[in-house]
Amino acid sequence: MNFCLSRILSPFKRGSSSKLLISAAVRPMATFTTEERGKGRPYSLESRIFFKRGDTYVSPFHDIPLYASSDNSVLNMIVEIPRWTNAKMEISTSEPLNPIKQDVKKGKLRFVDNCFPYHGYIWNYGAFPQTWEYPGHVDPNTGCKGDNDPLDVCEIGSRVAKRGEVVQVKVLGTIALIDEGETDWKIIAIDVNDKMAASLNDIGDVETHMPGLLQHTVNWFKIYKMPTGKPPNQFAFNAQPKDKAFAHNVISTTNQQWRSAIDGNTDKGSLCLSNITLSSSDTISNEAAAGIVNGIPVESTHSQDRPDTVDLQHYVKI
Amino acid sequence: MNFCLSRILSPFKRGSSSKLLISAAVRPMATFTTEERGKGRPYSLESRIFFKRGDTYVSPFHDIPLYASSDNSVLNMIVEIPRWTNAKMEISTSEPLNPIKQDVKKGKLRFVDNCFPYHGYIWNYGAFPQTWEYPGHVDPNTGCKGDNDPLDVCEIGSRVAKRGEVVQVKVLGTIALIDEGETDWKIIAIDVNDKMAASLNDIGDVETHMPGLLQHTVNWFKIYKMPTGKPPNQFAFNAQPKDKAFAHNVISTTNQQWRSAIDGNTDKGSLCLSNITLSSSDTISNEAAAGIVNGIPVESTHSQDRPDTVDLQHYVKI
Repeated sequence: MNFCLSRILSPFKRGSSSKLLISAAVRPMATFTTEERGKGRPYSLESRIFFKRGDTYVSPFHDIPLYASSDNSVLNMIVEIPRWTNAKMEISTSEPLNPIKQDVKKGKLRFVDNCFPYHGYIWNYGAFPQTWEYPGHVDPNTGCKGDNDPLDVCEIGSRVAKRGEVVQVKVLGTIALIDEGETDWKIIAIDVNDKMAASLNDIGDVETHMPGLLQHTVNWFKIYKMPTGKPPNQFAFNAQPKDKAFAHNVISTTNQQWRSAIDGNTDKGSLCLSNITLSSSDTISNEAAAGIVNGIPVESTHSQDRPDTVDLQHYVKI
Repeated sequence: MNFCLSRILSPFKRGSSSKLLISAAVRPMATFTTEERGKGRPYSLESRIFFKRGDTYVSPFHDIPLYASSDNSVLNMIVEIPRWTNAKMEISTSEPLNPIKQDVKKGKLRFVDNCFPYHGYIWNYGAFPQTWEYPGHVDPNTGCKGDNDPLDVCEIGSRVAKRGEVVQVKVLGTIALIDEGETDWKIIAIDVNDKMAASLNDIGDVETHMPGLLQHTVNWFKIYKMPTGKPPNQFAFNAQPKDKAFAHNVISTTNQQWRSAIDGNTDKGSLCLSNITLSSSDTISNEAAAGIVNGIPVESTHSQDRPDTVDLQHYVKI
């Protein structure tokens, strides 16, 4: 048998010597921490992960800046679902201070099914703050309305990030998922501190240096709801990823749609726009924010076990 | 876009109502338990997982019967590496009572690299007891000698098994891996209590009901050592899986090779053949077996942390 010469692309440990691999001025990053309320052992319907900057509670949706560098080349991403996990955690757009909570379907905590050969999510998955896929807007690329959520991000670095971590990323491209008839852009990005980041500057570099990643990403989104009986998801552009410039336009558009809601120029629908830092009509005091968090007990009285079904493997035939 | 009609093959929870889906008489299964010595928090070089039947320590390599049914259609498999984990745990063929221990390379506990899109091992991985790939035997199929280990098994059921669990499986086929120049058959099998087991009766059924599994299995074995700088592994038969009958022949052959060592008709090399139940020249008393286990402290004094590198993701280009 003959094999082509192989090339190994080794990831690197996030170390103290790592540097931002970009030239633009990066704004000093405020350190965000998280605080869980309604905590279960290990799960509860009441669990809420709130964000803090110093001693002040903030909204990850509204108070964490989208852009982290002066030229907008570095962005803040909020990690909701670490790689290889499948609890469907997401920023609650409708609750005050928008904590991360686990999605609930039919009264049960939602776990995404493991579809062979994948284990949970295959990237660190999360959202860009200060973005919103406005459900009143028909995207000309997909012909579908926005999904009413912040813009989703797949962070493809080698490290497993932590839930609630705010990671500085560079944008590489995007995939136009149509998830149950709604436009649901997936931005492909990489932690600027991942040593592969220096080699990845646009969507073509992803295929060069991470062969198969884009194809598996499309396949993952196509099949991930099928074990629950749903049809395969669809994509615009024949499921071909779009490049970095296109992705930045999507980000800018959804940032403007969020801004329009904050400014009262768009029907906000179910969104809770309470914030600490924006000086908008929904801005609340630090004390009011603390009152929201302190209204939820630290520990839930309704802990739930890990369901036996969470670790099952499913085989999907398309 | 058009999509073909999809078909979902849902796995099932292992429940109290599950039954052995075979007609042959299944021997009542002795209940095996495990006991860890040299335990670290969470790891130690000294960790050894011993097997017990009732109060008696036994060797999983020699004392657990290979066949679990009168017609040899059900076999006992010993789980070494649960699905989605990557600590390289294996039966120690050279130590008394053959406990499961973590492989050590260059003085460090060995973890198999995660190669995208896989997380750890993609099946429950383990070995058949009472089998040995004799290193003095050149396999006519591969042209390579045996790898000096018990026969490896990939259990493809939907459940994540536990390390040290003895699972009753049915055999479906085999892949002829040549791992660094040694013959290393991988038997494809399924837990007889998995509800998919009824639909899987030979290698062709695997592709029908678990599309992609065999291709990903070959790919996993091809690339899994590449992040350490090794070339892709090779396969006999152009990497095409062989069927159930062929696999049973491999099992029978390796069972005979093990028997020959036990009977003193083959150079055992580094194997430790101490056993409790075989009435061979290496059979030892229950008390002697307990003495071996009790010679190792329950807790290690050299605990090791989980290395940061264990959860990194690697991209491999072939």
